[in-house]
Parts: sequence; C-alpha cells; structure tokens
Amino acid sequence: MALIVQKFGGTSVANPQKIKAVAERVMGYSRKGHRMVVVLSAMAGETNRFIELANQMQAIPDRREMDMLLATGEQATVALFAMAVKEAGFDAISLLGDQVKITTDRMHTKARIQKIDADLITRHLDAGRIVVVAGFQGVTEDGDLTTLGRGGSDTTAVALAAALKADECEIYTDVEGVYTTDPNICSTARKIDRISYDEMLELASLGAKVLDIRSVGFAKRYKVPVHVRSTFTETEGTWVVEEDKEMESNPVSGVTSSKNEARITISKVPDVPGTASKIFDPLTSEGIVVDMIIQNTREGALTDMTFTVPRTEYKKTMQIMALVVAEIGAEGVRGSENIAKVSIVGVGMRNYAGIASTMFKTLAKEGINILMISTSEIKVSCVIEEKYTELAVRALHDAFGLEKGAAKKRPAKTAAPAKTKASPKTKASASEAKSKKK
Amino acid sequence: MALIVQKFGGTSVANPQKIKAVAERVMGYSRKGHRMVVVLSAMAGETNRFIELANQMQAIPDRREMDMLLATGEQATVALFAMAVKEAGFDAISLLGDQVKITTDRMHTKARIQKIDADLITRHLDAGRIVVVAGFQGVTEDGDLTTLGRGGSDTTAVALAAALKADECEIYTDVEGVYTTDPNICSTARKIDRISYDEMLELASLGAKVLDIRSVGFAKRYKVPVHVRSTFTETEGTWVVEEDKEMESNPVSGVTSSKNEARITISKVPDVPGTASKIFDPLTSEGIVVDMIIQNTREGALTDMTFTVPRTEYKKTMQIMALVVAEIGAEGVRGSENIAKVSIVGVGMRNYAGIASTMFKTLAKEGINILMISTSEIKVSCVIEEKYTELAVRALHDAFGLEKGAAKKRPAKTAAPAKTKASPKTKASASEAKSKKK
Repeated sequence: MALIVQKFGGTSVANPQKIKAVAERVMGYSRKGHRMVVVLSAMAGETNRFIELANQMQAIPDRREMDMLLATGEQATVALFAMAVKEAGFDAISLLGDQVKITTDRMHTKARIQKIDADLITRHLDAGRIVVVAGFQGVTEDGDLTTLGRGGSDTTAVALAAALKADECEIYTDVEGVYTTDPNICSTARKIDRISYDEMLELASLGAKVLDIRSVGFAKRYKVPVHVRSTFTETEGTWVVEEDKEMESNPVSGVTSSKNEARITISKVPDVPGTASKIFDPLTSEGIVVDMIIQNTREGALTDMTFTVPRTEYKKTMQIMALVVAEIGAEGVRGSENIAKVSIVGVGMRNYAGIASTMFKTLAKEGINILMISTSEIKVSCVIEEKYTELAVRALHDAFGLEKGAAKKRPAKTAAPAKTKASPKTKASASEAKSKKK
Repeated sequence: MALIVQKFGGTSVANPQKIKAVAERVMGYSRKGHRMVVVLSAMAGETNRFIELANQMQAIPDRREMDMLLATGEQATVALFAMAVKEAGFDAISLLGDQVKITTDRMHTKARIQKIDADLITRHLDAGRIVVVAGFQGVTEDGDLTTLGRGGSDTTAVALAAALKADECEIYTDVEGVYTTDPNICSTARKIDRISYDEMLELASLGAKVLDIRSVGFAKRYKVPVHVRSTFTETEGTWVVEEDKEMESNPVSGVTSSKNEARITISKVPDVPGTASKIFDPLTSEGIVVDMIIQNTREGALTDMTFTVPRTEYKKTMQIMALVVAEIGAEGVRGSENIAKVSIVGVGMRNYAGIASTMFKTLAKEGINILMISTSEIKVSCVIEEKYTELAVRALHDAFGLEKGAAKKRPAKTAAPAKTKASPKTKASASEAKSKKK
C-alpha cells in the first residue's frame, strides 16, 4: 500500500466524460489499497477564457484580482471530480489551496510555495477518502488567494508529495513522457525512460513544456520520484529520479527550443558601478525573470547591455527600460521578439569533450547565426533567429544521435571534463563578450 | 456621506459590458463621497451551467461539492468587477464569503448565516477602497465553503448592511421594484412605493421573486432600510421599511402565486402519538422545508396527512416517504406536482372584515376549486390546480382593486379584527380539517 499523488492536467479533465475517465483511473489505485491524493488543473480552455474576460475589463489586469478569477477554474474541476468519485461509490473530498494551507509569497499570478500543512489531507486519507486538491492555487499569510503560474499544478502535486512523504508522484499529461525533443518538430524524437532531476531542470527551464520547472526543483530537493506519463494509455512514461551511471553514458539527453523569449539591448550604458542594479532591480520588483545577460564593452566608458526576458514580459520590460535609460543616461533601448533559444542538455556532457563545438558547427553548417550563448555544466544554449528554430532542433537531434533506435554516436570520451568547472550555478558566456547570468 | 451596500444580481452583471456599466453606477456614488460595499451574484447563466455539469457527474450531486462548484460563479464576478473599477481609476478589492468570515451552519446549498465579521471590510473602506463582496457564499466553522441558496446574494447584502450598520441597502434587479403582482401575469400590476417588512416577508415566502425572504428577515431584525430598484433606470423603486399608518389603510397590498410547490398525501396514517414527528423529522434532517400541513380524520384511528414541500424536493420527499409509510404502517403515499399557491397579503387586513371570504368567492366565481387553505394575520393562501394560477391572480388583483391608478375598493372597516388572533406565527387551516403548520 503506497501513498500516491497523481496530477492530471487540463486536457485530461477537459469535460465531464474525461473527468469520469480520470476518476475511474484513480479509483483503480484505490481498489488496490493505495492512499490517493489527486491534484487537478482547470478544464482545458477555462484559463484562457478567464484571461480573455479579464482583458475586457482592464488593459493590464490587476494581478491580485487575476488570481481571484483564475483560481475558480481548478475549484470547479475538483468539485466535479469529487462528485464523479462519489457517484462511483468511493468517498472523496475536494480541497482548495487555501484549505490545505499552501502558503505562498505575495507574487500574484506566479507565487512561490513557502510551506504546506499536510494535516488536513492526512486526516481525510485516514478516513478513507480520495483527496482531490485544486492545483495551481495558494494563499498568502493574509488570506489573499494566489496562483502559481502556468504549470503550477505540477508544482502543487510535487510539493504535496514532498509534504506528505508520498511514495511517488505521477504527472499525467497528454504525451507519453519526456522526449529527446519535441515530437511535433522532429519525427524521430524518442521517449526517455529515465532522466535525472538536473537534466529535467534544464530541459524544463529551456522550453520543454511537459513538466513545470519548479515542480522539478521540489522533486529534486525532497527526492520525490516523479513519473511523467499519459492519461490516455497504460504505458510507462518517463521517471524523473536521481542521477545514475547509465544516464552519464550519454553526452546529450535532449534538445529543446523556446520561442518564449525576447531580447532587449540598452546601448551606450555608462560603465559605472551600480548601473547593472539600476537596470535589473526594477525588473526584479515586477517579478520579471531575466534569463541571459551579456555586456559588450564599447569605446571608452560605455557598454551595450543585452538580456533576455520571457516574451510575455516584453512590453512591460520595454516600458520600464524607457524610464531606466533616462535615469542612467544611456543612449537608448531596442528589442526583438523574433528570437528563439535552442539548447542541448545532458549530465554526460561533463565527461565528453567538444559537445559545445559540435553544436556550433552543426548550426553553422545550416547557415544559422548564433546571437547569444549560455552554458552550464550540463547544457549549452544558443539564441538564434526565431525562423530557424525547427531547423536547428532537427539538425542538433540528428548530430547527437538521439533518434529512435539509433546506435548512439558518441564522441571520444575524455579523462577530464572539457569545460572549466565554474560555480554549480548556470554561467552565461559568449565568445566575444564578458557575460553574466542573473 | 453614507455607508451604502449595493447588491447586483446575475442579469445586471451578465457580461463584461454590463459589469462595466454597474461599476460606473457604483463609482458615481463614490464620487459623491459615499463609502461603498458592492455585493455581486454570478453572471446570469453561470449557476445553471454549473448545475448541468454537476448533473452529468452525479445523479444527486453531493451538496458540499455543489457548494464548492457554485461558489466559483460569484468569485469570478467580483474579480472582474474589481478590475473594471481599477481600470476606471478607483481603488477596489474583491473579497470572498470566507474572507469576510460569513460564517454559516453546515446546511450545504442553503446554509444560514450565523455571524459576520465586518472588520476586514471596514479596514478596506477606511483605506478608500470600493469593497466588492461575493454574494451567496459562506463558510462553516471548519472552513468548508457553503452557499446560501437561490437569492442568497440578497441575504449577503442585507446581512452585511446590518453588520456594517450601513445607512441603506440597495438591491438592484431587472425590475423596477416590488409590484402588486407579477406584471408578466397581470398587465395592470402597479409598483409599490413603500411596503412593510412583514408584508414583504409574506410576499417573498409566497412566491414574489424580487427579494429573497431571508434578506427581508435580516432587514426587519436589524431595521435595515432596503431599496429594491432597477439596474437599468434611475427611477426610485420600492422601499422596504418599518410599518406605518399609510400602509395599514390598504386591506391588500399584493397578490402572489407560486408554482414551486408539490403536495404529498399519506393515507391511512395510524393516529398515535409520535407519528407526525416520524413523518417530518426525516425531512427536517434533509433540510426540506414543509410548508402547509393538513390532517384529515378518517374512520377509526386512521387519518390522512397532506403537506406541501418545494417542488425541487418532491422526488426526494417521495423517496423518504416510501420508507416512512412502511415504518409507521400507513396505507400509502401519493403526490402531485401540478398545484400552485395563490396568496393575498396586506398589513391592513387586520382592520378589515371579510377579506378571506372575498378571496374564496372570487375564486369560486371563476370555477377554481380550493385544495388547501392557510392564513396568517396578514395573508391568506389557497392551493389550487396549477392550470388556474394566472386566472386566479388576475381575478384577485382585480377584486381587491390593486390595478394601476384605480380608486381603491375598500370593504367596510370594522372596529375589531374579523379573524381570531392566533399566535403571531403563520397558522394553517382548512374548513373541513384540523390543521397545523410546521
């Protein structure tokens, strides 16, 4: 008898029929004697409907009110799900984020979980109930509702699994697991059976949408075995677990791409101490996460500062930078939304030489210009023009031998890691520039 | 500068445009310096949509889960409304039933308010905000969400007005106020300018849908002046206030009808002590409210017991009665949903003789058979066959001279009240039977 947390996304609970099918699946586990906690998202389409409504009310919808609105989506699903379970003869109870005291910070629409009180859930489990928890939701110390951002239900599930010391956390989705790359882009993409937390963290942060990055962070910290699998089949999916020898034998585990980036350049920034914080502090206080940062030295005491932000934050960032430019006495600001980031990820990368240069050569051969580069111990990312995204992904997937059933093409193994070990945190770099990563 | 609570129903906030229009109306009061608390219902249609979804999940949806589901409707409206107000430059904050601690009993889907903590609202009002409260919602001591039943937002508004000691409570609706009868049934129906709490209580309990009965009870207890008026005009509506001389001069203030009734008869009930409680206790524990009760003595120690319940509870009541019949050894149970109740109401009734007999004569003249009768100091109700409802209403409206601009037809005033004064509570009676009212 195990304690299992299962999370089902919006497409898995898109309508009453699908909710019933999911309820059946969960009850199958109950029949085997497992203690079940189910985390659900809003029915597919609901969140977008709410966003449209909100946009009709306010040009930039208030974030606290947005959370109030969005939280209704998950609330409806858990109630309907509990009804379906009860109809089938099992006992169930739906609970909201604030009822299970998923306490978060005040960063509305993308709040971070600070603590969870698992007592109420445990009591209902002890009473023999299937506990159905609304994903995505949290509550501040003051009782304001918050939401955890897109993919937040994954985080709810893994965080609950950690708090409950669950035996495993199953993330059900509409794909069969984690792939070597997006199968919609590359037909030879292959499902990965086992992947390490660190690789999954990189893949998630670099655009793989199958699992929310914060959930992977929780899973790693609390060593929660996560099983990503399909709602619609019984096939085993991908286990996200601690690193092992087998994983290290592949130099590259996956290729990802992301079009959710925008690039902003502030030109002729006076190169005096404190300038960087004047540029980035206003973004931090708005909760805008800066990804890569590159600073190019120009003539004299002037530099160009280039960085990337999520594309959804592009307009807001440009507005903020217009003020910043005036304040710090820079020349101006320009930006582009037509960029993409392609990345290769693998824990085995530490053991092989020349992985980055193979990537650069592969892109060059396809005539793709590299705009920015960022590396860590287990990944290399390149920012390129958006139009080349799919071409780049396919070329890299092929170059590193990730295709289905392919004999693995491995470069010669080196005794020492090829790249200099820096801090364990991600380090940005670009050949012609000094660079830093926020 | 006054503290005003305004409640807007589902048709008033049916879509983003209407929500904006309502926000404008509220802000007009803010501009004049009033402190504003707004109570909102779910957007028209939402509640029905949820009920349909629930019915797809469970034959008889679990009431706790139903509340969880239904409460999302109001939550969405208040968030959207707060956004609209903020967009227009005023400050606003949305609050849920559990956030303002509208504590109720555990009677899910029709919970009763037990207490309200007005502190949070007062703090936000002091901070200059328009406070937008989700109507219809409550929370149990344990933190389970409840709802107050159809019309519950009226109750929220009046209860908040009482707790906040508001100067007035405005109930906005899609009609211009309280009418002498339903204008859809009787074209000569007239808007009433002022009506007493007691009359409004009777009208509401007898089928007038404009104001929820529990809200009138709160208003009476805490002497909250309630102004029922239209969202779509500036016209004065109907004030529901304490009784005055002027009101007493009319024998009848209004005529109502209700088709939300069903009649159930248990035949050959052994007439032994304790039988009545065996019949009605199971209904009480299910929260089913019995309206009229009539007990007809038959031969020997057997009686027939006839009573009415809300039509929505008919099936459930019949199920329960099937068990009860077996338990108490009665002959059987039969019922009808094809009945209606027509009523006349007026505080002036106390001062005039022959009001009830005028009613009976009027119905007889139209060939309408009276199935059950119930009276109180200020009302007379008759249960009739459903098909005669509209005919009965028009005939009574005319017989008591309630038409627009009509010279009032008043019967001769008597020195003493014509009817025997019983307890202040409603007393059921029928000519041929001993009767009681639950």
